[in-house]
Amino acid sequence: MAALVVALMLIPQSLAYALLAGMPPQTGLYASIAPLVVYALLGTSTALAVGPAAVTSLMTAASAGALHAVASPDYAWAVWWLALLCGLWSLALGLLRLGALAQWLSHPVLHGFVAASALLIAASQLRHLLGVQAEGTTLPQLLPALAQALPHVHGPTLAFGLGTLLGLWLARRHAAAVLRRLGWPAARAALAAKLAPVLVLAVATMISAGLDAQAHGVRVVGAIGSGLPVWTWAPAEQWRWSYIEPLLLPALLLALVGFVESVSVGQSLAARRRERLDPNAELRALGAANVASACSGGFAVTGGFARSVVNFEAGARTPLAGLWTAGVLALAAWQLTPLLHSLPQAALAATIVLAVLGLVDGPAFVRVWRYSRSDFAAMALTALLTLTVGVEAGLAGGALASVALLLWRHSRPHIAVVGRVPGTEHFRNVQRHRVQTWPELLSLRVDESLTFANARYLEDWIAAQVAAHPHVRHVVLQCSAVNDIDASALESLLTIEERLRSAGVTLHLSEVKGPVMDRLRHSELPTRLQGRIHLTHHQAVQALTAGARPGSGPQ
Amino acid sequence: MAALVVALMLIPQSLAYALLAGMPPQTGLYASIAPLVVYALLGTSTALAVGPAAVTSLMTAASAGALHAVASPDYAWAVWWLALLCGLWSLALGLLRLGALAQWLSHPVLHGFVAASALLIAASQLRHLLGVQAEGTTLPQLLPALAQALPHVHGPTLAFGLGTLLGLWLARRHAAAVLRRLGWPAARAALAAKLAPVLVLAVATMISAGLDAQAHGVRVVGAIGSGLPVWTWAPAEQWRWSYIEPLLLPALLLALVGFVESVSVGQSLAARRRERLDPNAELRALGAANVASACSGGFAVTGGFARSVVNFEAGARTPLAGLWTAGVLALAAWQLTPLLHSLPQAALAATIVLAVLGLVDGPAFVRVWRYSRSDFAAMALTALLTLTVGVEAGLAGGALASVALLLWRHSRPHIAVVGRVPGTEHFRNVQRHRVQTWPELLSLRVDESLTFANARYLEDWIAAQVAAHPHVRHVVLQCSAVNDIDASALESLLTIEERLRSAGVTLHLSEVKGPVMDRLRHSELPTRLQGRIHLTHHQAVQALTAGARPGSGPQ
Repeated sequence: MAALVVALMLIPQSLAYALLAGMPPQTGLYASIAPLVVYALLGTSTALAVGPAAVTSLMTAASAGALHAVASPDYAWAVWWLALLCGLWSLALGLLRLGALAQWLSHPVLHGFVAASALLIAASQLRHLLGVQAEGTTLPQLLPALAQALPHVHGPTLAFGLGTLLGLWLARRHAAAVLRRLGWPAARAALAAKLAPVLVLAVATMISAGLDAQAHGVRVVGAIGSGLPVWTWAPAEQWRWSYIEPLLLPALLLALVGFVESVSVGQSLAARRRERLDPNAELRALGAANVASACSGGFAVTGGFARSVVNFEAGARTPLAGLWTAGVLALAAWQLTPLLHSLPQAALAATIVLAVLGLVDGPAFVRVWRYSRSDFAAMALTALLTLTVGVEAGLAGGALASVALLLWRHSRPHIAVVGRVPGTEHFRNVQRHRVQTWPELLSLRVDESLTFANARYLEDWIAAQVAAHPHVRHVVLQCSAVNDIDASALESLLTIEERLRSAGVTLHLSEVKGPVMDRLRHSELPTRLQGRIHLTHHQAVQALTAGARPGSGPQ
Repeated sequence: MAALVVALMLIPQSLAYALLAGMPPQTGLYASIAPLVVYALLGTSTALAVGPAAVTSLMTAASAGALHAVASPDYAWAVWWLALLCGLWSLALGLLRLGALAQWLSHPVLHGFVAASALLIAASQLRHLLGVQAEGTTLPQLLPALAQALPHVHGPTLAFGLGTLLGLWLARRHAAAVLRRLGWPAARAALAAKLAPVLVLAVATMISAGLDAQAHGVRVVGAIGSGLPVWTWAPAEQWRWSYIEPLLLPALLLALVGFVESVSVGQSLAARRRERLDPNAELRALGAANVASACSGGFAVTGGFARSVVNFEAGARTPLAGLWTAGVLALAAWQLTPLLHSLPQAALAATIVLAVLGLVDGPAFVRVWRYSRSDFAAMALTALLTLTVGVEAGLAGGALASVALLLWRHSRPHIAVVGRVPGTEHFRNVQRHRVQTWPELLSLRVDESLTFANARYLEDWIAAQVAAHPHVRHVVLQCSAVNDIDASALESLLTIEERLRSAGVTLHLSEVKGPVMDRLRHSELPTRLQGRIHLTHHQAVQALTAGARPGSGPQ
């Protein structure tokens, strides 16, 4: 049952994503068969369904479209190369256990990218909905082209498009409720409701066939080369470095985005059953699936969200479910394609638009804006670059921006002057709490690991504090939040100690963590330090202020 | 007095660095006059002496030499451009308050770079010591050239070179002691000993003049265009983008290296007087000094170590000292250059070799190796690239490698399963200490800020732990070492919570820091979390294990 439901859902989806990728419809079916089998054999998730997905199809179209005219033979081979290279990248990263690379695409960057991609996909499908010509892979290309084409809108096509949109929307909102009211059990009603979109498309196809819409200028799917997937391999003249080289980076980004989507879907499903996914094994399985897709006439694939959830809810528990689904799809590709002849492209475009607009997570933008302005900046930059320059620029720019922000934050750590909460052994920021301080003692807490990136900042900070407090005789660095001290920071500590000493001030450390202390023991710091390394900050303060009366408040 | 001593020291040094930069000797004097005046007016350090320095001269020679033949007019203009652009970069960075950029050159990278540069400089001076022809700016170029030239060594030149080396070495080791034994006061003896190298060069010049060494094939400094520095500005045909563009990156690196050297010298001297240096003001002053150097016929300059220390020890307390020194140097450039005619180039080369070999900090390599293998890797990579590919590749490669290592370490944080030290409220790593644990409770301490770079690592880690401990009902994340949680990590925490919940496990947090908690309050985490955010880990454990008997040791 799961296999049949999933397969029925996949047929229109696969055709739609082929349209989105700029490829003939049957390639979408091919891309759903061999990869599914390969993943069932190699993958570690029991619920993941591998096939064409919205974002990867858009990335394929954008990368191949930047090099060749859509529907040219060179375009088709570029798509083939993208799938193959994406597979090889995934295999290589998986074998080298570099799956962790994907984490450099932060959540805000992915949100920004997916939202912008969804808008781009929706905009690119408008031409099919309106029945006009308008090419382009970025908003600055698409919007003027659509505006120019607006007077030439094809009425019947638009009618099919809007009708399908309405039908799909109604099906999604009300199908389950209607079925339940008809007396179906809730679980079965929910499952059957998933099939409602297929029904909508079937109705659209029948109307189109009945009215002979093609004769009235409505573009339909048309004659699909029916048959099973065939072995596909680039001919010798395509094996040129100048053809392959510009596809290497796009293929890597495709592999990473596909991997992130697939693994996050897989992890959430696995967690519900307390199973464990091995990300690197997943990467290898996805890589093999992509190679299989290329070799069987498909295009780049990944573990899709919608299809996997259906698979899971339909009860798929073993890789066998994937094999059954593949079988049904193969049967469809072999025998059922003539039935799809009259399916209007506008109806498929409506499927895509509705599917991808569900990916735009508007509240996520508000959430990130509220939580962190710098994360929002990375998110907005990614979205903006994706919309205006292209999907690769968006992803790469966003990833670089988040790394730059991470480094920037790390390089300007939070440093607090701390004082004692009266009557306790606790020390807190003098600017947040009423605490005791001593004029000859400066207590500092650094809330960051000490590395080359912030060592000089610390040097400057301490120099400024000591210059501002002429009575200070001791500086104690509370290291409770210092998780690492690298060689640069070690040298900076020695420099700080030397400079303080030449100004008549002694440097002490306190609350150094075990692993950090282990490494410091291999250094010259313990012997060169004039002050001591105290176990707790309280002990340090007691030892250094014996007899002195504390003041209070910020110094 | 300070001015006179510094000026006398500077004359041979300036000539030597001009030789190193591949420029006529008088340009070294020019580069020491106007920059000194400009820095005295704008700089914030009272002791820093600005002028040509070993590493910046080498970088100048390497960058200009990569584009044009040494001593060609184009070479001279490339050197001019480098000084001007280096000045403009410094001014721009200083005005934008981006002095912190320099901290991305970590200590190990700088050590590796300076040591490799010193070896390169020494190797490049061998040709002057041996009196042979051997061009090149990397070891793979220099060594074979020197090997080929070995049969043509010029005896008299070698004699001057070795003689000067010996003289300088003796002067450095014994001059102060001899003077003290002659009854001089220690302080004055130390100061006068600084002048001993000048005396050695004077003797070499006199011998060279007396024996008419030039007639015997010994290359001497020769006729120096005597006169004051003159206004220098590139003619119109040099203002081409194709000339300027390849010098932009080298000039930036030159500006950063010069800034780092200058500021570290300046900071250590300022600290002794409890003064404070503003790095960005320093950067602007150095920028102006470099522009002044270019415009007065000099080349790239920085605050040198040796000259600044002499300046400081001679008692320079006001910017006036710099003005006096500049005056004496101007007098020298104007009137004394004929006296330098017979100074053998081999003697100058000996000065350089001895000066730069003092910069090779061998023990630093051992120290860093002992302390941190990954820092050592960055250091070795920098040195290797500098020696074999070039100074820019060395610096850029080293800086990128240290950032990559920083990100790598950050992305795989130390996570410890913790348990209670019996009878206390303290929690420690179960693998390091004898502690109590509970089968239904998993206590984790993450020793790193949570960001997109390690959020997925944490997800995987927790998923693996929960899969491995089927009895666990509660996971408590001790956040005492978490200094920041970015938007990605927040989302990961929500994902973790959701996955744990669907597996019947509750997620709790404990000991969240004030600034982190402030931000979390703006997020949905507190409301979506099924568990609680406990003030201390002890309270969390007490609340969650009420009545249960602890086990012990690693779970």
